[in-house]
Amino acid sequence: MIKVAIVGGTGYTGAELLRLLALHPHAQVDIITSRSEEGVRVADMYPNLRENYPDLAFSVPDVEALAACDVVFFATPHGVAHGLADEILQAGTRVIDLSADFRLEDAEEWAQWYGQPHGAPHLLAEAVYGLPEVNRAAIKDARLIAVPGCYPTAVQLALLPLVEAGLADTEQIIASCASGVSGAGRAVKIGSLFCESAENMVAYGVSGHRHLPEIQQGLRRAAGQPVGLTFVPHLVPMIRGIHATAYATVADRSVDLQAVFAQYYQDEPFVDVLPAGVFPQTRTVKGANMCRISVLRPQDGDVVVVMAAIDNLVKGASGQAIQNMNIMFGFAENSGLLSLALIP
Amino acid sequence: MIKVAIVGGTGYTGAELLRLLALHPHAQVDIITSRSEEGVRVADMYPNLRENYPDLAFSVPDVEALAACDVVFFATPHGVAHGLADEILQAGTRVIDLSADFRLEDAEEWAQWYGQPHGAPHLLAEAVYGLPEVNRAAIKDARLIAVPGCYPTAVQLALLPLVEAGLADTEQIIASCASGVSGAGRAVKIGSLFCESAENMVAYGVSGHRHLPEIQQGLRRAAGQPVGLTFVPHLVPMIRGIHATAYATVADRSVDLQAVFAQYYQDEPFVDVLPAGVFPQTRTVKGANMCRISVLRPQDGDVVVVMAAIDNLVKGASGQAIQNMNIMFGFAENSGLLSLALIP
Amino acid sequence: MIKVAIVGGTGYTGAELLRLLALHPHAQVDIITSRSEEGVRVADMYPNLRENYPDLAFSVPDVEALAACDVVFFATPHGVAHGLADEILQAGTRVIDLSADFRLEDAEEWAQWYGQPHGAPHLLAEAVYGLPEVNRAAIKDARLIAVPGCYPTAVQLALLPLVEAGLADTEQIIASCASGVSGAGRAVKIGSLFCESAENMVAYGVSGHRHLPEIQQGLRRAAGQPVGLTFVPHLVPMIRGIHATAYATVADRSVDLQAVFAQYYQDEPFVDVLPAGVFPQTRTVKGANMCRISVLRPQDGDVVVVMAAIDNLVKGASGQAIQNMNIMFGFAENSGLLSLALIP
Amino acid sequence: MIKVAIVGGTGYTGAELLRLLALHPHAQVDIITSRSEEGVRVADMYPNLRENYPDLAFSVPDVEALAACDVVFFATPHGVAHGLADEILQAGTRVIDLSADFRLEDAEEWAQWYGQPHGAPHLLAEAVYGLPEVNRAAIKDARLIAVPGCYPTAVQLALLPLVEAGLADTEQIIASCASGVSGAGRAVKIGSLFCESAENMVAYGVSGHRHLPEIQQGLRRAAGQPVGLTFVPHLVPMIRGIHATAYATVADRSVDLQAVFAQYYQDEPFVDVLPAGVFPQTRTVKGANMCRISVLRPQDGDVVVVMAAIDNLVKGASGQAIQNMNIMFGFAENSGLLSLALIP
Repeated sequence: MIKVAIVGGTGYTGAELLRLLALHPHAQVDIITSRSEEGVRVADMYPNLRENYPDLAFSVPDVEALAACDVVFFATPHGVAHGLADEILQAGTRVIDLSADFRLEDAEEWAQWYGQPHGAPHLLAEAVYGLPEVNRAAIKDARLIAVPGCYPTAVQLALLPLVEAGLADTEQIIASCASGVSGAGRAVKIGSLFCESAENMVAYGVSGHRHLPEIQQGLRRAAGQPVGLTFVPHLVPMIRGIHATAYATVADRSVDLQAVFAQYYQDEPFVDVLPAGVFPQTRTVKGANMCRISVLRPQDGDVVVVMAAIDNLVKGASGQAIQNMNIMFGFAENSGLLSLALIP
Repeated sequence: MIKVAIVGGTGYTGAELLRLLALHPHAQVDIITSRSEEGVRVADMYPNLRENYPDLAFSVPDVEALAACDVVFFATPHGVAHGLADEILQAGTRVIDLSADFRLEDAEEWAQWYGQPHGAPHLLAEAVYGLPEVNRAAIKDARLIAVPGCYPTAVQLALLPLVEAGLADTEQIIASCASGVSGAGRAVKIGSLFCESAENMVAYGVSGHRHLPEIQQGLRRAAGQPVGLTFVPHLVPMIRGIHATAYATVADRSVDLQAVFAQYYQDEPFVDVLPAGVFPQTRTVKGANMCRISVLRPQDGDVVVVMAAIDNLVKGASGQAIQNMNIMFGFAENSGLLSLALIP
Repeated sequence: MIKVAIVGGTGYTGAELLRLLALHPHAQVDIITSRSEEGVRVADMYPNLRENYPDLAFSVPDVEALAACDVVFFATPHGVAHGLADEILQAGTRVIDLSADFRLEDAEEWAQWYGQPHGAPHLLAEAVYGLPEVNRAAIKDARLIAVPGCYPTAVQLALLPLVEAGLADTEQIIASCASGVSGAGRAVKIGSLFCESAENMVAYGVSGHRHLPEIQQGLRRAAGQPVGLTFVPHLVPMIRGIHATAYATVADRSVDLQAVFAQYYQDEPFVDVLPAGVFPQTRTVKGANMCRISVLRPQDGDVVVVMAAIDNLVKGASGQAIQNMNIMFGFAENSGLLSLALIP
Repeated sequence: MIKVAIVGGTGYTGAELLRLLALHPHAQVDIITSRSEEGVRVADMYPNLRENYPDLAFSVPDVEALAACDVVFFATPHGVAHGLADEILQAGTRVIDLSADFRLEDAEEWAQWYGQPHGAPHLLAEAVYGLPEVNRAAIKDARLIAVPGCYPTAVQLALLPLVEAGLADTEQIIASCASGVSGAGRAVKIGSLFCESAENMVAYGVSGHRHLPEIQQGLRRAAGQPVGLTFVPHLVPMIRGIHATAYATVADRSVDLQAVFAQYYQDEPFVDVLPAGVFPQTRTVKGANMCRISVLRPQDGDVVVVMAAIDNLVKGASGQAIQNMNIMFGFAENSGLLSLALIP
């Protein structure tokens, strides 16, 4: 059993790490930190965890204690991992960062989108973008993982087979996406109230969401050239789930896109290319580390529509983080990730 | 007070006609028909209407009785109005059809999309497409109105200012839309069950939804040429609401689109162009005959994003039907349409 | 048109006053106050009100300006009306307080439940408990109205016909109730987040909710003796609605309780005694100033079950407040209260 | 690995058996039957099961094939197990019936509540009521298990510690309960539609629900005398979950009820007596085989309030069925039942 620490465990991604790791055969959570909730038992904040974590309590982050673990997950707001990662890495402990701190390879671009200087640019060179479907080999040897954002996971998995193969016009791609309310985290804000988000749908961040440069970076790497992307996220009244609908123009209508996708993901345990005519439902991935994808050209036209569904807290965050951990430590990649989606 | 009949009143658009007409100062519902529910009081099926319709009961449709009214609304599945409209019109009674029967001007195209021959092609010439923002003058003199579909209302109102003025590339327009579950009507089908649609988002009809040709027809009229449209509707877990996000390419970045939209709709009582930076929320139109619209070019790029929100049962169906009636009969256009959206 | 002021208008009951008063034929809102939102237009905070309140903005409360209105509604946390009511009343302006400040006739009891001294005990003698079904005559002549709480409205309307007539054992009455999340107001608290309250049901305040003494006071007045009440409120995942299920023991099984209730409320415009066998649904009162009630003795036993449903923001707050205003000013009691519930 | 068959697997309890058994270390599903869906793959009906059941398809029930399994679960409407259980049992295969067929020990009473003659009264003597907290020893040796209903599980677990110990007046007990919509199953009925059940709360079956005699039977056994019970179920807008709030009168206020409950359930793996002051939330058991319970006497009075929360599809049906299987076959009682509730 490896020893796991979670920094910043009071939010939903922290809670989801606890839920998934509770059933992991090779890992156990020894430390979970929170400055504001010091001393509170996780079982008291998350009563669903009462049986599995009867004693674990939030503690103030202590770098020495963290460094004594085998791996430290950061489930923190941006900027926190910048400050702590270096010291932990130097102790030989691996770091899996669920925040945005190491997702962008360009420190300047990061600073521009996050409104503050990048706090650890010297670590960028070794940070590995933790999308296993792209970077599995690098993840295996990594010490520092930047777990992709939820939208970036869904949108990249939807578009990579097209973009990598040069099948789509990369000058103008549309990603019209939607997220459940848990994407906004457990912070108390008006817009996340039940009475503000139930029975409602609204777009947000249309003029420029922080996940835009992350998606562009991933598509650019795959395409070998810049990609023109319009990304519009929407908020929909469900707890969990990301639904991405991507639109692009294809040059060659004769390509069998269903076959392209099926082949691209044929060995991927956590990407499911649905049969033609079946569209992904977010509920079929609720609680599961899975991305379901459909591809089609409506009316046999030039426009390809790719749809992807993930659970933003699992394949879009904590599940993917554990998938990275499994690869890094040589565990079976699905360890702790066997849960099936809850239907109904 | 004019006398109103509703044919096929057991569904949600029928119930919404009843709700809105209950407070109409110049109209009263004398007849509501349903073969299956003959004799049942509407107050028993819709207990929210107990105070306003203590005695009205569903009756079997009788053309003579219908023809004795001033106006007949059809809130029926497609095909029904085809069979009954002619006789009613001949009696001098006006017909406002909420179904799809007279929305497409081409009977062949209708037959192809609806899988049956058009039942009243001789009436197509005089049928007026009941989108007041486009056809107010024609509606005034019409005897037969085809009330637009819910998606077509939202998408056309979102795109008309661009398309009419030739501001957008009409070869490739994307309309990524979502509807609350009431869009599927009150019919019992698995997909409309609470346990199947709550906590879920899924696309449907991607390969070709019946609202596609209707939207294309409206945009073609406005553009004066065919329009390439990709239309993807999604189902989201809310009762009411359509949210449309349209994407198009603009030729000239210097045009002030906010001003274009504001001017286009400046005299429209039921279209609200939101201030720059404010995006439409479906809850702000819940129960109200209103379409709220935003327009912007993210990142100052070539792609324009237009968002529109309506209540599918009001501006997307029954409210718009009453708006048509008001215009036809010379009532104040907002008669019976004063309700504000319920927030929260 | 009378001039209306609303003190503390940023919460849900304030917004609901605005929604209902927008269509009131005899009243218009001239002032709405909020210290935190000074200068913000209500249309910007509540976009559903854009058409009806294009210019009204929140202002800092100014007693002189308030006193120049005909009536001032308090939609404030408890304690605020204590401080302001006196001065306003002295100016001859009527006060309708939606908070708890004047609901309990005993200042000591108030202090005990609200954890602070009563701030205006000298006004208690003239404060009228604004439940029109009990106090219509007193309301007509009142200067200061204490609008009942949401649970107290539902539970008292459910039990008064039994308790007044001495038909139920008043030593042990159970009121098992549930509220939608809007009952918690628009304040940002963890428990009101979508992700905390959706897909969940939980009891709260079981050891002693502040509405308990209010309900007991009302039942005691009706019974002429103390009433033993166990009151358990629950939170259920809907925006609006109170559902109350009351249980009591009857002494005489031969009494026709359906007839008792029907007669008790026969002249009440806003209480609907449902036919035998039909149970109240909260959605049938959503947005409407209405209480629907059912009564039955299951299995023909000694226990009577009375169920009542209201919209907590309408008959449970703002609608009832306006009903009081209508009575006070001699308007038709249903002025501004004609909206039907939104179904679906 | 034992071989498992599921009869009637298209409903929600069938799907939940599949979800839970997919991770069971000692059991595998070989057969799942459905007359209407013969030949359909379960992965096509329940896409969340695609990875775990790639090939399993619904087949027409064949008694010989069923009898070749080690255990047959019935997830059928009432009456079906009556017809098939005998033959299967005679082949030495155990039967775990999730329907109501063998829950009532009195065939006459069954016939009265279910409106048809009991189809297998000769099996009643050996049928064991599968509530492990009461009947674990008998379950161990049983061939035929009647899995308790969802409400009966919650209400009995809430009341047994009181009733068995004679701590509550058994003449008048109130059980005010609520269920998520999945309790109504996957059948298409108007009341289960999203648009009919979202944003709504309503009671049902108040005059006599079929779970009433089952609860009374269980409490009578525990009390050693008849129990007067008023049981009112309500429908609330969530997918999963039962919340039961029980009210009884205690004779002796000096008894420490928290201690009574803690001791009663101290060895139970699937009953969690919450700390004083913490109330059960249905979401803390969503997807988990767990019952969380709180007990208190509000205002230090005579009335005890016991609250219990379960997932109706897990501890209230399929999870409890598997718990029974585990006991019968000598597996660890939590085999396949390790999933934690999904929060948020």
